[in-house]
Amino acid sequence: MAIDINATRLWETILETAKVGGTHDGGVRRLALSGEDKTIRDWFCAECEKLGAHVEVDTLGNIFAHYPGRSSGAKPVAMGSHLDTQPTGGKFDGILGVLGGLEVLRTLHENNITPEKPIVLVDWTNEEGARFAPSMGSSAAFANVLPVEEILSAKDRNGITFEEALEEIGYRGNLPLGEVEFDSMFELHIEQGPILEAEETTIGIVTGAQGMRWYDISIKGMASHAGTTPMHLRKDAFMTAAEISLELRRIALEEGANVTIGEFLIPHASRNVIPGKVNLTLDIRHPEEAVLDKLEQALEELCSSEITATTDVSVKRILDSAPIVFDETCINLVTQAVERRQFSSRRILSGAGHDSVNISRIAPTVMIFVPCEKGISHNPAESITPEEAAAGAQVLLDAVLLRAGI
Amino acid sequence: MAIDINATRLWETILETAKVGGTHDGGVRRLALSGEDKTIRDWFCAECEKLGAHVEVDTLGNIFAHYPGRSSGAKPVAMGSHLDTQPTGGKFDGILGVLGGLEVLRTLHENNITPEKPIVLVDWTNEEGARFAPSMGSSAAFANVLPVEEILSAKDRNGITFEEALEEIGYRGNLPLGEVEFDSMFELHIEQGPILEAEETTIGIVTGAQGMRWYDISIKGMASHAGTTPMHLRKDAFMTAAEISLELRRIALEEGANVTIGEFLIPHASRNVIPGKVNLTLDIRHPEEAVLDKLEQALEELCSSEITATTDVSVKRILDSAPIVFDETCINLVTQAVERRQFSSRRILSGAGHDSVNISRIAPTVMIFVPCEKGISHNPAESITPEEAAAGAQVLLDAVLLRAGI
Repeated sequence: MAIDINATRLWETILETAKVGGTHDGGVRRLALSGEDKTIRDWFCAECEKLGAHVEVDTLGNIFAHYPGRSSGAKPVAMGSHLDTQPTGGKFDGILGVLGGLEVLRTLHENNITPEKPIVLVDWTNEEGARFAPSMGSSAAFANVLPVEEILSAKDRNGITFEEALEEIGYRGNLPLGEVEFDSMFELHIEQGPILEAEETTIGIVTGAQGMRWYDISIKGMASHAGTTPMHLRKDAFMTAAEISLELRRIALEEGANVTIGEFLIPHASRNVIPGKVNLTLDIRHPEEAVLDKLEQALEELCSSEITATTDVSVKRILDSAPIVFDETCINLVTQAVERRQFSSRRILSGAGHDSVNISRIAPTVMIFVPCEKGISHNPAESITPEEAAAGAQVLLDAVLLRAGI
Repeated sequence: MAIDINATRLWETILETAKVGGTHDGGVRRLALSGEDKTIRDWFCAECEKLGAHVEVDTLGNIFAHYPGRSSGAKPVAMGSHLDTQPTGGKFDGILGVLGGLEVLRTLHENNITPEKPIVLVDWTNEEGARFAPSMGSSAAFANVLPVEEILSAKDRNGITFEEALEEIGYRGNLPLGEVEFDSMFELHIEQGPILEAEETTIGIVTGAQGMRWYDISIKGMASHAGTTPMHLRKDAFMTAAEISLELRRIALEEGANVTIGEFLIPHASRNVIPGKVNLTLDIRHPEEAVLDKLEQALEELCSSEITATTDVSVKRILDSAPIVFDETCINLVTQAVERRQFSSRRILSGAGHDSVNISRIAPTVMIFVPCEKGISHNPAESITPEEAAAGAQVLLDAVLLRAGI
């Protein structure tokens, strides 16, 4: 029995909700626990309740809309993503996974389908981490990866804590964290990368996530006058940073890894002063732990090499997110769904972090990617077509029903 | 007849005035046209008047203390430098040239010497440019290098104009700019570089100044996700900037030029976003115009090379200060003074900009350098010995008297 989602309804819902925090350039600014977040949460809860779902909110504001199954004692099959955005975000990142899940529930409801296992649709709080660091903290706490106190006490730039903001918008729920246990987790998301579009592929079956390590690097040389200090007497922190960066890129290209210097600061910079200090960040990613180790080793060796002879380099690893392999059974269900609908597909690794990476530690998990234009996300220009959204939601429905039973 | 300056008085005066804007770390913060600048100016004018000097202030706040000569119609021999400092400045940069000049006048006064030509001691306003850009603007306007309106309308970070600040501290003088004409100019200054100290040399006889060109470079790539964008699809503005910087350094080392990347900014930087834009500054210096041309040519070629294939690089030259050759007659007078006192000396080029570089366009000019510890300046750690200060002031006195006639 083929149960079809309503592509028009899904697309209209996406456009309608994009007005909440919508910006003039077509983007969305809906920071976690802001007034806009409250508005969309209220709307989301009401829509789920209209379908007969029972809505619960936990200590961190994560929302669970329970759609009943015939086997009421069974753990629910989970779907979902997040409704918050970056400060200059788009209409799809996170949102597609929640509204795609809502479209699944609407379709089940209008077809009077009660699956064997219950289904739960989740909105994770503050996935983006744009207002409160870290990102994905609420799902991390849910999966016992981070302590809940650390999430609640995080402050935004105005000194408001996550906990205060949660209470302010009325989403400090009384459901204990982790009380809901998942049978499995299915997250629909835009790729946020250029691969599916470049290969004209409709669905990415996500088999896991790259490992990721973050470093803070500080280079100390000696600030001195640009005009009076001969080149051979300089201790130029900037030039050392440039050499380290290019050397890391060279090694990454050899290893097929990704390296990014995202932040770079010269404190007290002045155009006629040789930089005495530079602070930079390094992000390295690869699907294999061994390659991450190799890059980290190379970085350490650089710190005692000729390149850094005139400067002191200190390196601090601040994040180590191991490579994740998603659940093979769930991957197979998505593959079956894709084949049934005859969508073009490929297996793909997630380059970005997602709440599902956390959830995969406590429940069988998989993700479904759809292409996005030029791979652009975290940007008002973030764009997908109605057909791409519909294909993703259809695969989500089919895979979830394969898991939940009908 | 040997007329000796008073080394103790000079040193005590330096230490005494360093209290005006003095900081806990032994440095001086005396921003141009600040309350501290007013205090030191008032003190300076009063000290000069005690010696029978007639003090005038021009439209830009430049102070001229006229010490009379026997030939009252002759143009005065000028000495001087500046009393303002960097935000984290030291006790000697600029200050030594003014207080050394004051010690010259005090010595003449106590010895009842009236030279043939009059002498004028100058304090140039805002040499540092730390509060109002550009640096050396007041001497530039005095020498018709920059329009006076540009200097007066410059704003500090709080939006206060140079003109408003000048009026606020009561140093908007009524002497028309450039009305004082110099016979010649002698500026005593710390080297701000490591050469004299490294060679254990007491006096640097400054024969000219390096040419200097400043550029604003902007590199545009495409901001994208650090995790999802494969290396071969990136347009990484940071990596392009690193490559350009190291390539320029390579060429500079070949040519014996100095290159400095002093400021470097990634707008909207985030550790997991590939930099879509980078703004940086470039400072290149060399005594020969031809070498500066060669470096500029190399920079242009880099902008259309393989290195910049994935990014757009725009380069704007914002300053072109030609190499300066000081006046041979004045250089010889300083050389005579050094020989008379049997100080060790060497000819040296100024790597930094100085007000005298501007003045050299309108009057015979020379500078006298003394060593400073480790070449450090623009820093509370800026340091010279009482003996070095005294040697510099003595050479200044002797050279000025050789020029003025006794």
